Amino acid sequence: MLKAIHCNPHEHNFQRVTSLEQVREIKKDPSAIFWLDVENPSEQDLMKIGEEFQLHPLAIEDASHEHQRPKVEEYEQFYFVVFYTVNRHQETQRLDIHEVDMFLGQNYLITVHEKPVSELNEVEQRWTRNVKHLEWGIGVLLYSLLDTIVDTYFPIVDGLVDQAEDLEDRMFMGSKRNNIFTQELLDLKKQFLALRRIATPERDVLNVLTNRDNPLFDERVLIYFRDVYDHITRLADTVDLYRDQLSTVMDANLSIVSNDLNKVMRTLTVASIILMVDSLIAGIYGMNFENIPELHLYYGYFGCLILMAVISILLALAFKHLKWL
Amino acid sequence: MLKAIHCNPHEHNFQRVTSLEQVREIKKDPSAIFWLDVENPSEQDLMKIGEEFQLHPLAIEDASHEHQRPKVEEYEQFYFVVFYTVNRHQETQRLDIHEVDMFLGQNYLITVHEKPVSELNEVEQRWTRNVKHLEWGIGVLLYSLLDTIVDTYFPIVDGLVDQAEDLEDRMFMGSKRNNIFTQELLDLKKQFLALRRIATPERDVLNVLTNRDNPLFDERVLIYFRDVYDHITRLADTVDLYRDQLSTVMDANLSIVSNDLNKVMRTLTVASIILMVDSLIAGIYGMNFENIPELHLYYGYFGCLILMAVISILLALAFKHLKWL
Amino acid sequence: MLKAIHCNPHEHNFQRVTSLEQVREIKKDPSAIFWLDVENPSEQDLMKIGEEFQLHPLAIEDASHEHQRPKVEEYEQFYFVVFYTVNRHQETQRLDIHEVDMFLGQNYLITVHEKPVSELNEVEQRWTRNVKHLEWGIGVLLYSLLDTIVDTYFPIVDGLVDQAEDLEDRMFMGSKRNNIFTQELLDLKKQFLALRRIATPERDVLNVLTNRDNPLFDERVLIYFRDVYDHITRLADTVDLYRDQLSTVMDANLSIVSNDLNKVMRTLTVASIILMVDSLIAGIYGMNFENIPELHLYYGYFGCLILMAVISILLALAFKHLKWL
Amino acid sequence: MLKAIHCNPHEHNFQRVTSLEQVREIKKDPSAIFWLDVENPSEQDLMKIGEEFQLHPLAIEDASHEHQRPKVEEYEQFYFVVFYTVNRHQETQRLDIHEVDMFLGQNYLITVHEKPVSELNEVEQRWTRNVKHLEWGIGVLLYSLLDTIVDTYFPIVDGLVDQAEDLEDRMFMGSKRNNIFTQELLDLKKQFLALRRIATPERDVLNVLTNRDNPLFDERVLIYFRDVYDHITRLADTVDLYRDQLSTVMDANLSIVSNDLNKVMRTLTVASIILMVDSLIAGIYGMNFENIPELHLYYGYFGCLILMAVISILLALAFKHLKWL
Amino acid sequence: MLKAIHCNPHEHNFQRVTSLEQVREIKKDPSAIFWLDVENPSEQDLMKIGEEFQLHPLAIEDASHEHQRPKVEEYEQFYFVVFYTVNRHQETQRLDIHEVDMFLGQNYLITVHEKPVSELNEVEQRWTRNVKHLEWGIGVLLYSLLDTIVDTYFPIVDGLVDQAEDLEDRMFMGSKRNNIFTQELLDLKKQFLALRRIATPERDVLNVLTNRDNPLFDERVLIYFRDVYDHITRLADTVDLYRDQLSTVMDANLSIVSNDLNKVMRTLTVASIILMVDSLIAGIYGMNFENIPELHLYYGYFGCLILMAVISILLALAFKHLKWL
Repeated sequence: MLKAIHCNPHEHNFQRVTSLEQVREIKKDPSAIFWLDVENPSEQDLMKIGEEFQLHPLAIEDASHEHQRPKVEEYEQFYFVVFYTVNRHQETQRLDIHEVDMFLGQNYLITVHEKPVSELNEVEQRWTRNVKHLEWGIGVLLYSLLDTIVDTYFPIVDGLVDQAEDLEDRMFMGSKRNNIFTQELLDLKKQFLALRRIATPERDVLNVLTNRDNPLFDERVLIYFRDVYDHITRLADTVDLYRDQLSTVMDANLSIVSNDLNKVMRTLTVASIILMVDSLIAGIYGMNFENIPELHLYYGYFGCLILMAVISILLALAFKHLKWL
Repeated sequence: MLKAIHCNPHEHNFQRVTSLEQVREIKKDPSAIFWLDVENPSEQDLMKIGEEFQLHPLAIEDASHEHQRPKVEEYEQFYFVVFYTVNRHQETQRLDIHEVDMFLGQNYLITVHEKPVSELNEVEQRWTRNVKHLEWGIGVLLYSLLDTIVDTYFPIVDGLVDQAEDLEDRMFMGSKRNNIFTQELLDLKKQFLALRRIATPERDVLNVLTNRDNPLFDERVLIYFRDVYDHITRLADTVDLYRDQLSTVMDANLSIVSNDLNKVMRTLTVASIILMVDSLIAGIYGMNFENIPELHLYYGYFGCLILMAVISILLALAFKHLKWL
Repeated sequence: MLKAIHCNPHEHNFQRVTSLEQVREIKKDPSAIFWLDVENPSEQDLMKIGEEFQLHPLAIEDASHEHQRPKVEEYEQFYFVVFYTVNRHQETQRLDIHEVDMFLGQNYLITVHEKPVSELNEVEQRWTRNVKHLEWGIGVLLYSLLDTIVDTYFPIVDGLVDQAEDLEDRMFMGSKRNNIFTQELLDLKKQFLALRRIATPERDVLNVLTNRDNPLFDERVLIYFRDVYDHITRLADTVDLYRDQLSTVMDANLSIVSNDLNKVMRTLTVASIILMVDSLIAGIYGMNFENIPELHLYYGYFGCLILMAVISILLALAFKHLKWL
Repeated sequence: MLKAIHCNPHEHNFQRVTSLEQVREIKKDPSAIFWLDVENPSEQDLMKIGEEFQLHPLAIEDASHEHQRPKVEEYEQFYFVVFYTVNRHQETQRLDIHEVDMFLGQNYLITVHEKPVSELNEVEQRWTRNVKHLEWGIGVLLYSLLDTIVDTYFPIVDGLVDQAEDLEDRMFMGSKRNNIFTQELLDLKKQFLALRRIATPERDVLNVLTNRDNPLFDERVLIYFRDVYDHITRLADTVDLYRDQLSTVMDANLSIVSNDLNKVMRTLTVASIILMVDSLIAGIYGMNFENIPELHLYYGYFGCLILMAVISILLALAFKHLKWL
Repeated sequence: MLKAIHCNPHEHNFQRVTSLEQVREIKKDPSAIFWLDVENPSEQDLMKIGEEFQLHPLAIEDASHEHQRPKVEEYEQFYFVVFYTVNRHQETQRLDIHEVDMFLGQNYLITVHEKPVSELNEVEQRWTRNVKHLEWGIGVLLYSLLDTIVDTYFPIVDGLVDQAEDLEDRMFMGSKRNNIFTQELLDLKKQFLALRRIATPERDVLNVLTNRDNPLFDERVLIYFRDVYDHITRLADTVDLYRDQLSTVMDANLSIVSNDLNKVMRTLTVASIILMVDSLIAGIYGMNFENIPELHLYYGYFGCLILMAVISILLALAFKHLKWL
């Protein structure tokens, strides 16, 4: 699926074109700026576009495979940028991570992706509304795109953070712990890790785009890219903080489990000792020796019960004193 | 709420103004230095101020949202600085962290914050008292502000350190450990982490402000900023030290809990074995075999009790020898 | 075993030669490009080749021993590159790691290896097919070689990743854990570690080959090397991610084992207490006191059984309330 | 308390002066070199000295508070250096850490400290004895001071290392472990941490003093500072090594405690099972069924005892086979 | 003990001299190259040599004490290099680490060591045999020395690695674990740590010797030093790999110990519950109630035994189902 938006910066009007032939026409006007969005292209489609825009075969090849990592690469005629969109699946709570490949030329931006990317619609609206920034060139469009993508990360991270905080609270509440806790913690840690794997190289990409000695973009646009850089840095910080915190939570969980075990074992020990002592007394008076004087006492049985009770209470007090109860 | 202090450096007199119109008047005098403090502004307020001082929309937008991170950004006409004030809530012992955004121009400082910040009053007093430093320019005011903010961190860190030391002492005392210990430790670690998240980028901010090749401020003011840099470095060091120490404390706690468990289990084992042996003897003489010679002995019962006692003592001594008791 | 492919770049025809004498002839033509592949050479073979091509004795010595690490070294006349091929043994699941040493001169590439390397056949095909790149020089051949080697890493890493994910899933399923789990985890971690030991210095090698100020290769070839660099970086990232994840899995496993222990101990404690209380009651009514009134009740026995049942149920409910069951 | 030593480098004679007025006289001679030592000064004392030597108020303020960190700061007229002396308290085994502040000018060194510092006497002797180095300037005095301070660290670190080695040996010996072990380990780790907090920034200080592009001192003195740098680097290395080692020891301790627990539980399990089986047999023959044939056998009782013994031995052998005993 | 080898590079003949006087003679010939080896010198010996060669007192002092760290220091007339030889004691399996101090001048190398160093004999042979490299200067001798020392590290590391692998295998085999395992692991880790403490700074030394902008040695010699650098880098890599691996092994060991504990406790729980239930039944029929109908049944006793067996089997099956057996 191919969709292009063409903009004549002088007249500030936008046109949608849907065939590569129209694009070829537009390209002839050097003052035109346009964005070509390609969804789930076949290899042939990409080849055609590559020929049309003289894109390097290596970049075309990278764009036709998923599983790249965020990066920016300078070619002679264009920049090749790989970024990722992240969504959290409502039910499974898994992260859906999709690649968006971008070719940025003098006056065009080509975006390539496999599945529909809802962020792109928003970018289109932002771009077509802010007509006054058009004269700053194609950089504004790339900025809008990266900014929109990075902005969608925040609610996801917030959701993960909420889950992490919730997990931590639960750790101290329920006294019946089970392995679902550990599983959830492991899952959460993995998701933070996955986000970090995207955020860190994307920060590097933005660093390259902003801090270069020979800047790619107009000075006025650069400030905006710096802002995106700032956002992704803050995000990476938050992710790192919670990864660290989750490790501590896992350690704390082990402490708590061990502590609970201690409590259980103390209970077992105290109960065992008291009951075994009482049982021993009962066993002693259950022996069949001919001459056991106590057995003949009229209140022997009751005395024996009282003895058991007294010993039990004394033992309980002793353990209480040892703070085992 | 808007509050401005205007200073004429030649005459050394301070004036308070409360409307943007008056500020506009003052601005016309290039030798005037003034500080504009804006509390909980609406977006419109910020827009107006932005227009008046030609502040960049991005900086204005950053200032209107909380949840930035400490940073300094250079714009063409001004510097945008984000710093944080930290307070520790008396009852909940939670950290209250508030953002203060600053715009530093040639001859003005604009501070923006959502809630009242008590540190600012102190800064005002410091500034208006030290009239002799006025000729060093607006940098002195920024220094006073950052220095005052950083100084308030120290009692908070000291409080956390005291709590950490106290926690450590308690670990070795009470023999009845419970999960509140772990919870407190986790809380404390989180607070150190939160402080570190502020201190490290603030150190970077001060590094930018002091070490630049083309310095922002007068050489005489730079030395003061270096002092604040030094303070925040020391603070970050202390925070790192105690974060590390708390990890060790958590490990030590696990060791202690495991050790306690060992003691409990030894007690259980020793008591079980002794009592079970005695019970077995009682059980044996409770059997109903027709021919059990011992049962007919006149002192059989007492001999049996003595046997139990002797075996119990021997077992206890054996376990003592194994250092299980 | 010696095998050489000679290419005349102007005529684009490839010739296979198998003796060093033929190679000597070819070398005289400065425009010829050729690849000399030496399998399991004796030290004498290497010496001869070294003399023929004026290779430095140190490089020759390095090439005659295995157990180097990936590296690139600049000599006056040539570059010496060490890379590794990795295969995973089908049955033992162990990694087979083999060294390939390369001497890269102005117009020749010499590869030295001990065992047959299947990747080299593929490289030969790639090289002889892409005749149009021949004019870019010997760099294209080195690129084809390194790219082919790095590409074979990916299915291996994917296999390890699958095994790691599988291990993680299994951790939460089976309730009868055994040490094979730990052994497999340790093995897997070691394999990731082994891969990392290769990937990191190979990335450095590619960094040296691509980022030098005075580049080794034609600008057009450099872009291809950058692509290999990119691949190996992604691989190293994945390896690091899973090494980290496996550490977390080991921690999680300890948590789960501890948690299981808790469950076991709770079961033991609850069952012990209930059964011991019942036994105590039975023991009491097994005592031989003359005067135990209950024994004479007609339904005493049944009442006693009911008493045991009631106490057992009450205890069970109490433990249920404590969430121990 | 104020003490000054004045040295005329040409005549090589040292004079002690005790009032600031005398110091003022000496200062007039540009060829004079002198050392001013101030113990526990009031703020007024420091102010006076500051005025006399035109020291910057910030440095004076830093010198009047403890709790700085090791640092060196360049001011226009002088260098401000903060270093620490470390002593280990004989009884409590705690580290006493004291600050020494130094102002190094063209021809003077001012040292400020709160408590008496025994190292200073030694420095005085070193300085006054090595008259031949006087012409190298004030740097020699600073070197003597820093070298003496750093040299006193070594016996302290050696003591800590001995304690750490001793702790490690003890871990494998005593079979009755207690929490004092953990407490000592934690204490030791904290002391290493405290030393590291001093050593690392002091190394940085020495790095600044030696490696600067525009060196502070004569080339001949620099070599001596490099030697101190070397010492403190070695110290920091040792401290890091043992911090790491103590972490491993804590982990090993947990392993050992867990292992001990295993042994205890095996003993309990084996003993419980054997004794319970015997008790069950006794219980069975204690039942009151009318028709239990064995009870009427003449040697039934003895047979029963032998049965118990045989079963016990068989069980013990079985557990031995399982390596549980 | 003093031993010198003098070489006249033009005539390629080597002479052994044993007194400092002869050395003084040789020194007068600027084209002479010689190596002075000093074993266990008194301080006076070192002083004399120092005077003769104008060595700096600091370097002499460093050479007279052991316990330096590997380093290279540039003095005006010479370089001072500290390196270490490592041997593994056959019986105690401890590492013997000895210091070799070297003074490298324009045309001499002085080695100082306390105990006999077998590596030096080998170096002598290498040096005197390779006469053709003599014209490259004194660097070749230093290279031979460092290369020989570094080469002796490899069998030691291989031995440690074998021991580590063996330890790992043993962890999964024996089911009776004891603390000797932990002790050995701790020992091994310490030895790796000790090696790393030497290898890392020695790598830095070689880095200084090879990568300097103004190289110390002839270009042709530099390549050889780079080779030693490569070896020590590989060694440091291996050491790091196994240190990391041993930490994982310690964690794995804890997992296994915990897992074993789980098994033990399950066995205890299952056995306890079955035996206690049977005992309870026996206890119930051991009660002395007058009216217990079952007691009067003719096959009551056998029925009771069958009941016990059935309940035991059912419980065992239930636990089997829960995978506790």
